Amino acid sequence: MHYFDYAASAPPFPQALQEFDRISAEHFANPSSTHQPGTAAQDALQHAKDTFCQICHAASARLILTSSGTEANNLVIRGVMEKYPHGRLLLATDAHASAWFAKDFYNKRVDVVPLEKNGRLYPEKIRKAIHKKTVLFSAVHVCNEIGTIHDIAAYAKICHDHGILFHCDGVQAVGHIPVDFEQNGPDFYTFSAHKFGGVRGIGGVLAKSLDFLPQMLGGGQEHAMRAGTENLAGLAAATKALGLSSSTLPEEAGRLHQLTQLFLKKLAESCDDYLLNSTDAGLPGLVALSFPGAIGASLVAEMSMRGFAISAGSACHADQVIPSRVITAIGRSDKQALGTVRISMGRDTTEDATTALAEVLAQVVQRHRLLE
Amino acid sequence: MHYFDYAASAPPFPQALQEFDRISAEHFANPSSTHQPGTAAQDALQHAKDTFCQICHAASARLILTSSGTEANNLVIRGVMEKYPHGRLLLATDAHASAWFAKDFYNKRVDVVPLEKNGRLYPEKIRKAIHKKTVLFSAVHVCNEIGTIHDIAAYAKICHDHGILFHCDGVQAVGHIPVDFEQNGPDFYTFSAHKFGGVRGIGGVLAKSLDFLPQMLGGGQEHAMRAGTENLAGLAAATKALGLSSSTLPEEAGRLHQLTQLFLKKLAESCDDYLLNSTDAGLPGLVALSFPGAIGASLVAEMSMRGFAISAGSACHADQVIPSRVITAIGRSDKQALGTVRISMGRDTTEDATTALAEVLAQVVQRHRLLE
Repeated sequence: MHYFDYAASAPPFPQALQEFDRISAEHFANPSSTHQPGTAAQDALQHAKDTFCQICHAASARLILTSSGTEANNLVIRGVMEKYPHGRLLLATDAHASAWFAKDFYNKRVDVVPLEKNGRLYPEKIRKAIHKKTVLFSAVHVCNEIGTIHDIAAYAKICHDHGILFHCDGVQAVGHIPVDFEQNGPDFYTFSAHKFGGVRGIGGVLAKSLDFLPQMLGGGQEHAMRAGTENLAGLAAATKALGLSSSTLPEEAGRLHQLTQLFLKKLAESCDDYLLNSTDAGLPGLVALSFPGAIGASLVAEMSMRGFAISAGSACHADQVIPSRVITAIGRSDKQALGTVRISMGRDTTEDATTALAEVLAQVVQRHRLLE
Repeated sequence: MHYFDYAASAPPFPQALQEFDRISAEHFANPSSTHQPGTAAQDALQHAKDTFCQICHAASARLILTSSGTEANNLVIRGVMEKYPHGRLLLATDAHASAWFAKDFYNKRVDVVPLEKNGRLYPEKIRKAIHKKTVLFSAVHVCNEIGTIHDIAAYAKICHDHGILFHCDGVQAVGHIPVDFEQNGPDFYTFSAHKFGGVRGIGGVLAKSLDFLPQMLGGGQEHAMRAGTENLAGLAAATKALGLSSSTLPEEAGRLHQLTQLFLKKLAESCDDYLLNSTDAGLPGLVALSFPGAIGASLVAEMSMRGFAISAGSACHADQVIPSRVITAIGRSDKQALGTVRISMGRDTTEDATTALAEVLAQVVQRHRLLE
């Protein structure tokens, strides 16, 4: 099986698993315990946090561990909205489901910044959408569906000009593009380790501010902002994976960019009617395409039978057959949007597999168009 | 270092770590993805859930994964209290911090069932404390501070007689005493894997009912009751650890009981003024003692320097110097309660270490009494 769904979940680095095992066995004690094994675990936790923050240029941030990107996004959004019960939330149209839930959940307290046809958010539209009661703006660093890399430093500046908090969802960014927390200036920056070769079950918030209410209460861990025994081994594995990803980042980004070009060149040779939703300036290795007249979910199913794992959109909504709000926002019709697939590459993706993917995808699309 | 703090966190089984690695590497795909690696991960998830439920005799339950016991307890309590905004919560006095938080958080909507001097909850007092607006009773299966094993089947019956939901916090029970979900009859039974030799970062709710509101929203995982990519490898490791614990449970319980008797016999030989807070009928391997005239936190610190890891109470409150509500509830004065330590044994605890613990603890207590 050729795996082209890195954006849904990446294979863990063997070194990250080794680190998980080592720390699990060496530091099994509870970091809240005051005896020597407990304080050693606490020290190891602080060391892993410091290293993680250092790689993200986030020396001034507090790293609050969570179990996932979803929990991290929920913690920030629910935490701020509960702390400011009269405040309004501003959401970007290409928010992940774990932030977008807030649109229905907080309903009349939510405003939305529209996407441009090129997938970007325009600063003047953000400014315009800020209400005097807005307390928080939430936007992704990298869009999980089409790979747009947003100018989050500009968004942070707008937010701070207006005295509102800025939450940046970095789940698709960390380990894939350079992240400079200090320079970019968000108040909250969230991540998930399994997207960059760490293990499942660990994510977090890099927080400049603790201006929100905790969502889990109990033992007072994480500056009393998130109770529960800390997943030290998970963080150590994440830190190892982030170190490995970051050390090869520029070369790997170039390689993935070339694979993307190769894929698009090969696809163009045998398929002519498709729309490219991602751009050259987006996340390296992510290609989003719409094939009018085909159904994305059916393409995914047949590609899987032919030995290729691709996605019809984000994994969270993989089984839905409603058109994606992101794909329609960039100007695709509902019918075009339903024919969307996402290809995402990573460290084990080869040229041969990429060429084969383009050839097989072209065949499968052609067959489906004849059927539908 | 001799580790006597299993109740705070147990060392993971090497086989559980191996299982974590194997599943992480084999099933790294997102279980929500519809391609073959995704559906294989979904199948593996269901298989692990089925196996876990089987060991707990919970064939009829849905297993909702969380990241910890704290999250599981918060999910049930906040989830029910939010679903029934006019409902009242009934809490047992020996609730863990991750349930007890609700007393302040929901304040006037909370009633408390007092503990008896023997550490038990009397059914008639539970009945008496049930208010016509009560929607949920939350009690631990095993008390983390003194090891009382509660008669949860009786509590479940009372709750169901009154038409209220029963949440049983099984964090200190699962893997340590037999758990029969069907027979005991709680609506929600919560657990944490690192307490029984699984890895950190995984817990869950065995749920007979989905009569609560989710606390994390996003991708619709876990019957839409808990969003976030599922920690499949964490669950697989937990299931492995639970299988190993359960298969040796009767012999291991007997062995730990004998070690406890040995410890108490040796302690009695060289120390005379102490109060035993745990009982013979409690959790095997857990001994809670109060030494009037000593300070628990100081004893823990000196025992640690002498090579023994013990606890002054639950790890979550290890650095607090206020007397425990559980220890005072069973009739100790504040002064006595401050001199409390908890010893908890597990699968690597030996006779030699236990004998040495009793001797050194007696010396350390004597020295501290002279000092304070």
